[in-house]
Amino acid sequence: MAGEFEFIDWLRGQHRPAPDFVLVPPGDDLAVLKWPADQLLLVGADQVLDGVHFDSAVHTPRQIGRKAMNRNLSDCAAMACLPAAAVATVAAPRGAGIDYLKELYLGLREAGDAFGCPVVGGDTASWAGKLVLTVTILGRSAGVKPVTRSGARHGDAICVTGPLGGSLLRRHMDFVPRVKEAAEIARLRPPTAMIDLSDGLSRDLGHVCRESKVGAVIQEAKLPVHEDALEMRRRDGHAALDHALHDGEDYELLFTMDPGEVAFAASAVRGIHVIGTIQAQPGVWLQRRDGSRERLEPKGWEHGL
Amino acid sequence: MAGEFEFIDWLRGQHRPAPDFVLVPPGDDLAVLKWPADQLLLVGADQVLDGVHFDSAVHTPRQIGRKAMNRNLSDCAAMACLPAAAVATVAAPRGAGIDYLKELYLGLREAGDAFGCPVVGGDTASWAGKLVLTVTILGRSAGVKPVTRSGARHGDAICVTGPLGGSLLRRHMDFVPRVKEAAEIARLRPPTAMIDLSDGLSRDLGHVCRESKVGAVIQEAKLPVHEDALEMRRRDGHAALDHALHDGEDYELLFTMDPGEVAFAASAVRGIHVIGTIQAQPGVWLQRRDGSRERLEPKGWEHGL
Repeated sequence: MAGEFEFIDWLRGQHRPAPDFVLVPPGDDLAVLKWPADQLLLVGADQVLDGVHFDSAVHTPRQIGRKAMNRNLSDCAAMACLPAAAVATVAAPRGAGIDYLKELYLGLREAGDAFGCPVVGGDTASWAGKLVLTVTILGRSAGVKPVTRSGARHGDAICVTGPLGGSLLRRHMDFVPRVKEAAEIARLRPPTAMIDLSDGLSRDLGHVCRESKVGAVIQEAKLPVHEDALEMRRRDGHAALDHALHDGEDYELLFTMDPGEVAFAASAVRGIHVIGTIQAQPGVWLQRRDGSRERLEPKGWEHGL
Repeated sequence: MAGEFEFIDWLRGQHRPAPDFVLVPPGDDLAVLKWPADQLLLVGADQVLDGVHFDSAVHTPRQIGRKAMNRNLSDCAAMACLPAAAVATVAAPRGAGIDYLKELYLGLREAGDAFGCPVVGGDTASWAGKLVLTVTILGRSAGVKPVTRSGARHGDAICVTGPLGGSLLRRHMDFVPRVKEAAEIARLRPPTAMIDLSDGLSRDLGHVCRESKVGAVIQEAKLPVHEDALEMRRRDGHAALDHALHDGEDYELLFTMDPGEVAFAASAVRGIHVIGTIQAQPGVWLQRRDGSRERLEPKGWEHGL
């Protein structure tokens, strides 16, 4: 059986010339970075668990590695910051084998490379349990004030960057995080609030409303429904609209903005849809095509504890 | 069953006034920090797994949280940097309950508070597996050049900050990371190399030798053997010396330094023992009390993959 340190040796051979800001690369107790003095540091972590976020019997380690990194890159997008570096830990099933771990790492790196985000450290351990892959991401503000969830204002347009629903068919394993779109939108017209759609539109919009102390109305007629949501309807009989409203893991951005400014954003970034309006009255509401309104309870993903 | 968002609400109520450098506290997609312009940023991650680093049937969640944080604080000590902030993720067994998660968090916080290191973000998920707790630590250089594993020189004294062996009896769950000792030593006389003893002396000294392209001789007569190693000998019949040489999870520091400078360090930090000497000849060697030498193969902890 290969050991942890054989894998670490391989890992160290994988590192291309480190970016200038990495003073001590992986292999020591900690990596050492010179953080640019004019940049805010954003940090967060996200994990993918076998049987929850992926199925190791179905998905390749390359896919799993990519997904773990892409979920974190999507968090950078949600704040309109640029990914700078990542740290990853793997809890591997005993006997998974060194080749499996290499593929996990190559998946992480492939996704990180697409946005200039090197893996600068981490930890590998084996255990009797199933695979857990955890990524911590460091982002930099890149001249743009980070966009939080808490700035949405009465009258703002609610926008999404693409069609929603049915992601669990396949898209959730292989999506492009909206890092470039977020940077471009924020450069042109900073959104008042932004979030990435991971828990489902109804729940994630609820987060924005709660943090911003506002409410929201979604227009059924304006909601872009992904073709995967239609396929899901054929499979499970639930309306495609419900899939678009409640499925998780779309990884599109939801943002709010003065309605007079949306045209600027939409001129630079393809696929932006205005789906509703922020209002003072609390709660998230759905306006049907016939004009009637109903309260939209969050049905997206929540981990039961 | 309580849900993830009920726990997140509780968490947000737990945050004391955030330190000045935390501009956006936990609760958004990422935390936002203003990194001090004159400080290097050190980053790394470490995880604790049920059945490997703790036993959830024996240890309390408070202990498990403390250990997860303390292992990362020990990595800061190993680089002679000061802990600045941490990010934590929990993969919790479904049905663990919100009170269990609160205790985990309070354990993390208790250990972090002892060194001024707030938890600024993270992620909670539940699954069918056992508990995984992962911490990423951010450290700051605090006016001291980070001490790596790679600077040990022929003729340096090899020092440890305390007695070794038998940690798995109980100490491994509740140790004080040597953050203050490391800062004090580095302030007085920067070590040429440093590491924290987590994999066992024989293996960790091997890491230093390999990174520094040197070898080492340990003097049996000078090695401080912990009383827990004696108790382990009574239990398992293995020599206490072997426990001191190979057991993992001591979490003392091992550092190398010009032998003429050790007295300065030892005058300020209690418990420092000189245990041997760095030499040009590769490998880690044990010099017995009778003057004979034998090669010391690493027998400490390695994760089989």
